[in-house]
Amino acid sequence: MATRWGICSAGKISNDFTVALKTLPAEEHQVVAVAARKVEDAQEFAGKHNIPRSYGSYEALARDPDVDVVYIGVIHPHHLKTCLLFTNAKKNVLCEKPLAMNTREVKEILDSAKRNKVFLMEAVWTRFFPVSVEIRRLLAQGQLGEVKMVRSEFGVPLMHVPRAVQKELGGGSLLDVGIYCLQFTCMVYNGEKPESIQATGVCLETGVDETVVVSLKFSGNRLAVFTCSSGVQLPNEAVIAGTKGTIKVSAKLSTKSVGDSEGLGWKRL
Amino acid sequence: MATRWGICSAGKISNDFTVALKTLPAEEHQVVAVAARKVEDAQEFAGKHNIPRSYGSYEALARDPDVDVVYIGVIHPHHLKTCLLFTNAKKNVLCEKPLAMNTREVKEILDSAKRNKVFLMEAVWTRFFPVSVEIRRLLAQGQLGEVKMVRSEFGVPLMHVPRAVQKELGGGSLLDVGIYCLQFTCMVYNGEKPESIQATGVCLETGVDETVVVSLKFSGNRLAVFTCSSGVQLPNEAVIAGTKGTIKVSAKLSTKSVGDSEGLGWKRL
Repeated sequence: MATRWGICSAGKISNDFTVALKTLPAEEHQVVAVAARKVEDAQEFAGKHNIPRSYGSYEALARDPDVDVVYIGVIHPHHLKTCLLFTNAKKNVLCEKPLAMNTREVKEILDSAKRNKVFLMEAVWTRFFPVSVEIRRLLAQGQLGEVKMVRSEFGVPLMHVPRAVQKELGGGSLLDVGIYCLQFTCMVYNGEKPESIQATGVCLETGVDETVVVSLKFSGNRLAVFTCSSGVQLPNEAVIAGTKGTIKVSAKLSTKSVGDSEGLGWKRL
Repeated sequence: MATRWGICSAGKISNDFTVALKTLPAEEHQVVAVAARKVEDAQEFAGKHNIPRSYGSYEALARDPDVDVVYIGVIHPHHLKTCLLFTNAKKNVLCEKPLAMNTREVKEILDSAKRNKVFLMEAVWTRFFPVSVEIRRLLAQGQLGEVKMVRSEFGVPLMHVPRAVQKELGGGSLLDVGIYCLQFTCMVYNGEKPESIQATGVCLETGVDETVVVSLKFSGNRLAVFTCSSGVQLPNEAVIAGTKGTIKVSAKLSTKSVGDSEGLGWKRL
């Protein structure tokens, strides 16, 4: 039987997710319902994507017995209460990144998912890109020797995008794009917790961070640094440097483009 | 009349400098003397490069009345006393980077050069590369809008090189290669002093730094970050990101290779 999806929020990211989901075989995945704060928005979304049911409240979606898993595409500050709504209704949840606004909220969501014995995942799609699979393969094989430095960055001008600059919408470069860098670092260092974290950054007048540089120190003299910015365009490449070799990851993360250092040059795989 | 050079130390870097100097017209630049701690080394160097006079002490070179300017190629910890020897002898000085081991030493050298009214320069050759000239031109024209972020790095495995790892030889990645990143940052921000500096790094058992990440904050919410390492190979590219555009500098700094962002792509100039 197909996994039956409910879509929470009819915004742009929910649209993109639904479009992607529909490329999978219908016998494996089906979108059975969508909910928005306004029922007209849900109805329009349902019509566009050929979804059977539409609801004017998230609570109604939570009560739908035919929904196995809910994709949550609401803005960051609403992740906490929306996640809790669905986990407490015994629904599995795939929540957009960032999972929540701070550690306290994340813990509350995790606790709820465990208590209700439901599946919970933060929608960090980059982990599933071919290049990430290739990186994990190279690391597992020890091709780089001991990794000593991980450098990543994500900078793109977003000053015109309300959700990126307004505090009440969960703005700030760290939550919006920096999370990809942090996830990349965590992936390379296999989920290990850093021994220390230093950050330098600048804020907008709205009180959210525009650009942040974060340095992390891990056990065994291993380092990482990442930069995130909603103010300027960066090349958005990543580097993993080890004692036996260095991987360079192109900005096009969705391709299988890993560069492997040979001496001082770079070979495209 | 040609500028008459004296070479202080007959090591590898002095050899490279002399080779480069000899590519210039002889009516403009001439090497007239070389000094080493052992007179045989000076004689061998003089014979190889066809230099008229060779000395077994730096003091003898300082007394040579025909020397206009001295190139100092000794190891870092000897820069202070060697610089003072020549500035006090009223010789102009071009000293290898880093100028000295710390601020106190640098101040002492600067004071001596001013007091003796001689020319003094730190040999940061990258400032004279075509790409640096091109960067300064683009910045002066305001092509990038306001620069908000400068990212640079210099990482190359040097664990086998005594001067890079031994404390008594002035080892450490910051003094050896990090200085190029700091100079790059200072060049872009036009010599402005940072408001704050944060650093995270790891040290070798010898007590010198292996890898260091430095974040700098400048006035007007402008940032910089650089990474230097003598432990791992990094791509060694640099980025200057502004509100109107982004420059990417290739690892081959000696070429005129500046990348200019157009939308999300990079155009080679």
